[in-house]
Amino acid sequence: MEKKERKPVYYSQYLQLDKILNAQEPESGKEGIRADDEMLFIIIHQAYELWFKQILHELNVIRAIFKQNNISNNSPDVYNSVHRLKRVCKILDVAVSQMSVLETMTPLDFLDFRDLLRPASGFQSIQFKMIEASLGLQYNKRHGQNYYLSQLTEQDVARVKQAEQEESLLVLINRWLERMPFIKDGSYWKEVRSDAPFWQQYRAAYESSLQDAEQVNLKTFDSLFLNEEAYPEGRSFSLDANKNALFIMLYRDHPLLHLPYELLSTLLEIDELLSLWRHRHIHMVQRTIGKRVGTGGSSGAEYLRNAADSHYVFKELAELTSFLLPRHMLPELPKDLIRDLSYTH
Amino acid sequence: MEKKERKPVYYSQYLQLDKILNAQEPESGKEGIRADDEMLFIIIHQAYELWFKQILHELNVIRAIFKQNNISNNSPDVYNSVHRLKRVCKILDVAVSQMSVLETMTPLDFLDFRDLLRPASGFQSIQFKMIEASLGLQYNKRHGQNYYLSQLTEQDVARVKQAEQEESLLVLINRWLERMPFIKDGSYWKEVRSDAPFWQQYRAAYESSLQDAEQVNLKTFDSLFLNEEAYPEGRSFSLDANKNALFIMLYRDHPLLHLPYELLSTLLEIDELLSLWRHRHIHMVQRTIGKRVGTGGSSGAEYLRNAADSHYVFKELAELTSFLLPRHMLPELPKDLIRDLSYTH
Amino acid sequence: MEKKERKPVYYSQYLQLDKILNAQEPESGKEGIRADDEMLFIIIHQAYELWFKQILHELNVIRAIFKQNNISNNSPDVYNSVHRLKRVCKILDVAVSQMSVLETMTPLDFLDFRDLLRPASGFQSIQFKMIEASLGLQYNKRHGQNYYLSQLTEQDVARVKQAEQEESLLVLINRWLERMPFIKDGSYWKEVRSDAPFWQQYRAAYESSLQDAEQVNLKTFDSLFLNEEAYPEGRSFSLDANKNALFIMLYRDHPLLHLPYELLSTLLEIDELLSLWRHRHIHMVQRTIGKRVGTGGSSGAEYLRNAADSHYVFKELAELTSFLLPRHMLPELPKDLIRDLSYTH
Amino acid sequence: MEKKERKPVYYSQYLQLDKILNAQEPESGKEGIRADDEMLFIIIHQAYELWFKQILHELNVIRAIFKQNNISNNSPDVYNSVHRLKRVCKILDVAVSQMSVLETMTPLDFLDFRDLLRPASGFQSIQFKMIEASLGLQYNKRHGQNYYLSQLTEQDVARVKQAEQEESLLVLINRWLERMPFIKDGSYWKEVRSDAPFWQQYRAAYESSLQDAEQVNLKTFDSLFLNEEAYPEGRSFSLDANKNALFIMLYRDHPLLHLPYELLSTLLEIDELLSLWRHRHIHMVQRTIGKRVGTGGSSGAEYLRNAADSHYVFKELAELTSFLLPRHMLPELPKDLIRDLSYTH
Repeated sequence: MEKKERKPVYYSQYLQLDKILNAQEPESGKEGIRADDEMLFIIIHQAYELWFKQILHELNVIRAIFKQNNISNNSPDVYNSVHRLKRVCKILDVAVSQMSVLETMTPLDFLDFRDLLRPASGFQSIQFKMIEASLGLQYNKRHGQNYYLSQLTEQDVARVKQAEQEESLLVLINRWLERMPFIKDGSYWKEVRSDAPFWQQYRAAYESSLQDAEQVNLKTFDSLFLNEEAYPEGRSFSLDANKNALFIMLYRDHPLLHLPYELLSTLLEIDELLSLWRHRHIHMVQRTIGKRVGTGGSSGAEYLRNAADSHYVFKELAELTSFLLPRHMLPELPKDLIRDLSYTH
Repeated sequence: MEKKERKPVYYSQYLQLDKILNAQEPESGKEGIRADDEMLFIIIHQAYELWFKQILHELNVIRAIFKQNNISNNSPDVYNSVHRLKRVCKILDVAVSQMSVLETMTPLDFLDFRDLLRPASGFQSIQFKMIEASLGLQYNKRHGQNYYLSQLTEQDVARVKQAEQEESLLVLINRWLERMPFIKDGSYWKEVRSDAPFWQQYRAAYESSLQDAEQVNLKTFDSLFLNEEAYPEGRSFSLDANKNALFIMLYRDHPLLHLPYELLSTLLEIDELLSLWRHRHIHMVQRTIGKRVGTGGSSGAEYLRNAADSHYVFKELAELTSFLLPRHMLPELPKDLIRDLSYTH
Repeated sequence: MEKKERKPVYYSQYLQLDKILNAQEPESGKEGIRADDEMLFIIIHQAYELWFKQILHELNVIRAIFKQNNISNNSPDVYNSVHRLKRVCKILDVAVSQMSVLETMTPLDFLDFRDLLRPASGFQSIQFKMIEASLGLQYNKRHGQNYYLSQLTEQDVARVKQAEQEESLLVLINRWLERMPFIKDGSYWKEVRSDAPFWQQYRAAYESSLQDAEQVNLKTFDSLFLNEEAYPEGRSFSLDANKNALFIMLYRDHPLLHLPYELLSTLLEIDELLSLWRHRHIHMVQRTIGKRVGTGGSSGAEYLRNAADSHYVFKELAELTSFLLPRHMLPELPKDLIRDLSYTH
Repeated sequence: MEKKERKPVYYSQYLQLDKILNAQEPESGKEGIRADDEMLFIIIHQAYELWFKQILHELNVIRAIFKQNNISNNSPDVYNSVHRLKRVCKILDVAVSQMSVLETMTPLDFLDFRDLLRPASGFQSIQFKMIEASLGLQYNKRHGQNYYLSQLTEQDVARVKQAEQEESLLVLINRWLERMPFIKDGSYWKEVRSDAPFWQQYRAAYESSLQDAEQVNLKTFDSLFLNEEAYPEGRSFSLDANKNALFIMLYRDHPLLHLPYELLSTLLEIDELLSLWRHRHIHMVQRTIGKRVGTGGSSGAEYLRNAADSHYVFKELAELTSFLLPRHMLPELPKDLIRDLSYTH
């Protein structure tokens, strides 16, 4: 068999440990200063960059899937995507908890070598910005664009901008939701047209669920789901995508919608984990660095806080939760639609 | 021996499991509605309340320690307090990660019984408010005082207010820092007086560390550490407390200051973990509930966000980090002071 | 609307906090001994019992599902079960990490009140034994049956035995796998008969994958999947169940098998988490208690170690991994079978 | 100022990301096989190796401290060591939870590229073996020495053996405990001599605490703490070290013993975390690989299980817990000894 003829693979060569384990050269060492914690500072950032590479790898595999014009329900494509997005969540879990290692570096220990690193900054992680861009964060929605430009080299700005030009997961998911790739021309599609009886029934049930003080929500409902002309500007998801996403959330108990529901949920979880990561990051920065008025450090902390608040990529999906109704109020689906959402057997 | 005469203790009686395990009566059951997730909703909140009770227990033990007029360096008091505060951190770690269990309740599953719970709200957890009060959050610094009053019963408002009237950990720590309880009348005390050579040396070193754009920090430094008259109003820590806290952070490598440093660090960690808990809480609320304009739920989420930003109790301690200098710039301490900060042997 | 007529629900009544928060009476208090850590000891065990109740609740919901004679593929039953099993995993995650709170109790602090608790023991948690029984641990496979009997009251032994008499998840899953509930009489069923071409092809591929030293595995393969007469005694899963479980693992990329695969994976995860919990438990016991020759404590630690090794409920499922082949070696499925494993659309 | 003249440091150069992010070359890519999960497999192992390097760095700093002939109580040496050991614990926490990322790789996905990696194996991680050796695991106590030799290159065996020849932390801690470095010739030393009244008092109290069935423990007590001639062979800690370690555990509430107690506790925690890591590792291996009789994989899993049980480095310290007495039974210390265990002030 072929495999017997392959050159044997050995752990340290396979992992290229000669590169990985020889890439730590503390600046303090070069200056003859003793700063035992600089090694930690280097290694934890390298570990982060490895994980960022892995996240980008997963996002690239997923985006390649959704770039297909048509995704057959019966291919493993969506299943595979959900699996990979959940892995991204696990990686982000590790990234968040890893912060607690860096928090063992006390401010005083950091001050031993901090000045030697200027003007380097975690902000300069291009891979992290490419993750944001791959998910769907656009340059014009980034917080602190000037700060941004001042910290990166031209070359790096170019790399990030190029990443922003490619179709992001946000764009691809919107398109996938719009064309309802999982059941293109079937009866389902008819049901989800705005003038279909289903939506009129749903609107009526939704209206009845609102208390007096909440009547204003009905108008929002109409503009987001039914009335194309009143659709607010500047949104990432189209009215059709909204409608289909809400439908998935409501009828996720039908087989065909299991995976689309998992997909949407997992996207929301990624947003939350990124937010959590930024939040922990802020704490870590404040704890080990503090803030002096007027230094770059200060705007760094400020940047993180604002990014944590405004860099939600799938925010519009998250907001759909407000328009759900309890199961007992849901319109019953027609039988043939139910069949179309089922397994053959 | 006595112990043989004690009535034998049995696990389920000792833990009063008849009470603990018979305290779950889902509202959905009373209404004849099937809502399998209501049990989870009840149990996780009960688990939280158990942990809150434990945190209050620890805080009470710690506050009793610091209420003593004098804490001998050689008593185990501070050691014990640090140990207990670190336990509080571990509990908060669990409280944060526990949120991921509640996040397995999907919005649709929550809607099955949500309406049956009105107007109950997690906001009504009196124990959580007592924890905040025990740490040092004052009523007038609480976010959303009106919302606050509208959600609680008069009796509960009274309980929280009473808790706020007792000496909080914040007040006690300030007093402990002020009187430098760990070395009351020794040479150290002389060194930390504002006109002592030490502080003038430190100020000079600090000034030399500032870049041009940062000179404004020197004024802040003076007002926080040296110039009683310029001391900003409304702060929790006094100028003396500030000064001693900074001294502890700088010279924590001396034996007598090990534990005080751990104490201050752990207080900051508690603030961070509470903030993290609120942050996760916000996510969970948004994910399972969403927000409708005009409902109480919406102000609940808003409340949490603002509380997460403004309810830092030991914020002023956290800010001291900005005034640290690297070890190589620290003024050398006089020999007799060093001896006073040491073990006998 | 009805809901307006309901009695308003208030947080503390809803959660019955009067019971929950008044169920802690330290023995040390009764004896006038100061032991500040006994509260922690009580509360953490109560928190565990709350979680055990929730796990039992989930297992009961799941078992009720699988007790149905027939589970339609198109009902949300399996989806719901997988969701609940994943929740059990999250709860067990919390249970494991919660151990770190108890580990903050040092041996010396435990000794302050340890003697007052005799002969209570965590081993006496009936709910934990009921969880094991509900999953499928049989009395005769329990480690340390004598120890077991000596520690529990007759009444408690009876409760556990009764739980063992009910159909466990293990029994139900075996039956579900056997009858291939998800596609009972279709072409699939024909394919998975032992004499079907599929299994002969798979056996040939499996044989070709074995190196010389591994040829003995082929015999095991035959006895577990093909040759009813050679089937080993005393196993929980039948030959048919094995075969179907392996098929699910191999062809999980087909829509109909997504959820069954998730189900099997999650059962394995539960076994692992329970093992992890026992492992952490052993550490905690050794760390806070130590072991003296001849005391009950010693057999307690021993018990845990053996239970950790032998109480795997779904062990036979875990072993199937050894009989998987890489995708490129898998026999191609007939087209009509593929269709039967698909969504309608 | 000097620092202005330094070459500016930029994030990606500082972290040598050109090396770190260009060290992933999947074997599947070379063979033209699609195996999207191989990237994860490479990256997670690289992340582990980075963390192993950091752990070795910390252990080297700590060993350098304990190699000093004399450690002054008033130097920050022990404080620093405890801090670094606690960091090692945090790193091991991350290492353990990181396993959950690898567990997202299903057996089928691993089989896509598994054969291409032969005979590489995680067992070949030289850094992990160096960690074990640095802590104190000796070659002759390693499980599976033959397996060991068969899997590593001669060069690697040589590296590990050299690491085993250096003074391990175990050896250094034993010596530090023996010479009671923290209070060499003071009254304390007199108290802990075997014939000192203290130990006779303690022995009497210990005896009185034993129940009838436990009397055999007294003999063990004598051989471990008092009777040099009956001291068991082959132990890592000497009788003097045992005695001092037990004294530290008992009187840790005195200032001078705070840090030594933390040190001993943290060493035990490292052992537990390594055991936990091996335990999770076993699960992961079994889940993704399974076991076939006769392959190297099978002995790999077996190896891990046995290593998990037998590679405890500080086992003898852990066992001391069994000889503790409750505080109320402890002999009172003489006043001058108490003073020697105190701060000057």
